[in-house]
Amino acid sequence: MKDNYPISVSVEEGIDLILKETKIISICTESVENLDGRVLAKDVVSKENIPPFRRSPLDGYAMRSEDIKQASKENPVTLKIIEEVPAGHVATKAISKGEAIKILTGATIPDSADCVIKFEDTEFDSEKVTVFAPLKSGQNVVPAGEDVKIGDIVVKKGTKLTPSQVGLLAGLGCDKVEVYKKPSVTLISTGDELVEVREELKPGKIRNSSAYNLNSILERSGLNSKMYGIVKDTTQEIGDAIKKAFESSDMVITTGGVSVGDYDKIKDAISYIGGKIIYWKTKMKPGSAFLAATYNDKLFFGLSGNPAAAAVALHIVCMPAIRKMCGIEEYQHKVIQVHTLSDFKKKSPNRRYIPGKLVIENGKACILTAESQGNGMLSPLNNCDIIANIEAGNTGIEKDTLLDAVFIFR
Amino acid sequence: MKDNYPISVSVEEGIDLILKETKIISICTESVENLDGRVLAKDVVSKENIPPFRRSPLDGYAMRSEDIKQASKENPVTLKIIEEVPAGHVATKAISKGEAIKILTGATIPDSADCVIKFEDTEFDSEKVTVFAPLKSGQNVVPAGEDVKIGDIVVKKGTKLTPSQVGLLAGLGCDKVEVYKKPSVTLISTGDELVEVREELKPGKIRNSSAYNLNSILERSGLNSKMYGIVKDTTQEIGDAIKKAFESSDMVITTGGVSVGDYDKIKDAISYIGGKIIYWKTKMKPGSAFLAATYNDKLFFGLSGNPAAAAVALHIVCMPAIRKMCGIEEYQHKVIQVHTLSDFKKKSPNRRYIPGKLVIENGKACILTAESQGNGMLSPLNNCDIIANIEAGNTGIEKDTLLDAVFIFR
Repeated sequence: MKDNYPISVSVEEGIDLILKETKIISICTESVENLDGRVLAKDVVSKENIPPFRRSPLDGYAMRSEDIKQASKENPVTLKIIEEVPAGHVATKAISKGEAIKILTGATIPDSADCVIKFEDTEFDSEKVTVFAPLKSGQNVVPAGEDVKIGDIVVKKGTKLTPSQVGLLAGLGCDKVEVYKKPSVTLISTGDELVEVREELKPGKIRNSSAYNLNSILERSGLNSKMYGIVKDTTQEIGDAIKKAFESSDMVITTGGVSVGDYDKIKDAISYIGGKIIYWKTKMKPGSAFLAATYNDKLFFGLSGNPAAAAVALHIVCMPAIRKMCGIEEYQHKVIQVHTLSDFKKKSPNRRYIPGKLVIENGKACILTAESQGNGMLSPLNNCDIIANIEAGNTGIEKDTLLDAVFIFR
Repeated sequence: MKDNYPISVSVEEGIDLILKETKIISICTESVENLDGRVLAKDVVSKENIPPFRRSPLDGYAMRSEDIKQASKENPVTLKIIEEVPAGHVATKAISKGEAIKILTGATIPDSADCVIKFEDTEFDSEKVTVFAPLKSGQNVVPAGEDVKIGDIVVKKGTKLTPSQVGLLAGLGCDKVEVYKKPSVTLISTGDELVEVREELKPGKIRNSSAYNLNSILERSGLNSKMYGIVKDTTQEIGDAIKKAFESSDMVITTGGVSVGDYDKIKDAISYIGGKIIYWKTKMKPGSAFLAATYNDKLFFGLSGNPAAAAVALHIVCMPAIRKMCGIEEYQHKVIQVHTLSDFKKKSPNRRYIPGKLVIENGKACILTAESQGNGMLSPLNNCDIIANIEAGNTGIEKDTLLDAVFIFR
């Protein structure tokens, strides 16, 4: 069979080829209390001001600045208190010349006042308040709509909501909100060497660690992820498992069987079930063994059987498409530059990705990498929050080199 | 009643006073698939190596380096293939002089071999393989225990687990793992000005946004958070609500009623139910209106009725204690330094906290702050991932000043 798909493409080409086949999942409605981390499916335009009225930011006395403009220590001005307005209430009287209203934090400032004085800066009893300095018009007056104005787009479609945005939506009375459905993904583990966590470890076997890592990454990224378990290394068994997994999933991911060995059955399995291969192999290390495909318009990723390589390919090559599937508007990687904290001697014939921890000291952003970076190792990923890259053809870099990097779990 | 608790303490003192009263919640057992973000309650010591055996990192031929040390393009060495070992299997024969074993990625390298050659670098048929260059002893041999060695502390007690650590624990056969219970917290909103999201907005009223923001922050921080709703501004109603909330919670947090106004009932409510005040008011802006207390050895926080001030106090003053409650070993703030991207003209008589977004370009870490930083505003918090601070007494800072900052949601 002739291969009619690209083989060994660059990371950028790979991401683009996959994004072209990526579709956003449908929309659903979610209650405001469950919105954190969900992706908004429609712009939210405010129908109200926050705050809805001119608000007092402190406990004190609302008055006319005109009345106290001559006030000083030597010539204090005493005003008559005509009413008291706690938060949640409104004044029933208007302030005339020589009058003030006692006002509490959060209460509506009456239209007849243009400033509020802190009670600590006055002398007062229940009937009168004495002021020792003038106030500017507008002083201690929080304007209506300071936080949000009517007609403001409060949060844009495609935004992954943060806690304060959840608070804002609640404050605007958004009880139910349209968000994108969380995509569902099933992880299938292939490889005759694998046994499950709960099984005995026989000679030549290793336990399935990769699925648990990938499952956690996908859940953190806003998907509903489930693990199918381990499937035998035959085209038919793998193909049947993928087909079955797609019945209940928006995306299927396998590990193992995507390099060039005799037992690498993923490509055959995709053909066997009638899937369409997008491309095979990415020019990167780790993670070059990789297959992207579609099945009934849904995305399929075949990741390496090597746990670290699988994780790096998922973060670097698949995440833009996963973010797009989730409905996130800014789905492309945001690239930062970080300094290396140590030499890195290895040659990089292909682009090399190095996971590490972002360290910031005195305004300088650096990447702290694990000392040992074995290809199969999960442990260097333990405390990583960024992945930096070294360009192809590099023969080794020195400490304090500036590298491009992307955040993971964002 | 005489106040016998500290009033208006520094942020550092406040954090310390609260930490002294903070207890870790109890331990429970969790299945490995649900471990991401949970906090380990015991060191996990490996009883196995990962990988458990010398592993081939590629598809090729295992052989004795001794046999091919003279190999070259001109004088290739041909070896007899005596067996094939796929991943998950072990060799049944030992390699003698002039012999090789076909080996697949992930398979056990037999003890009789000391190197593996990539199949692409050979010529081969089903019976023999020809090598054109020597290999070093150990070449392409992944040693047993490369990732984890027997006796290694794989993950320490008090670690908030990451996806790769979940993978590692699965790989070591940790089916059920002891973690700290998620603390439960109830949020009570006070303030006669508040109405619920679903209610009509009458004059003088504002909708409860703060509880939804804080609820999301607490959930993200690893707690089980619930919202009690809005309670009337009376000592008895607030006290009864706090008492009731503590029946089903490890921690209770209120908003509103902690400054010095006549309607600030939280302190009275704590006394009314027999709680013990830790301290009142923190020397910071926003968020100075704050009360920390204990009730039956459990923590209580009274946050400001101002949503932004409440969020900043929660992040800065309460989070170390919350992390400690969760069992996290490194519960103190990790301080970074970031450059400001704009002037900041306001005076800071007390220490001032400014939420912002971490921006990294060319290895320089900066804080991007919202243009408007109104005290009551939630919107400047929308895209924040760090909170920087300006020291007390500062009269304004210029662009490119280096400020201390802490990450939020970590």
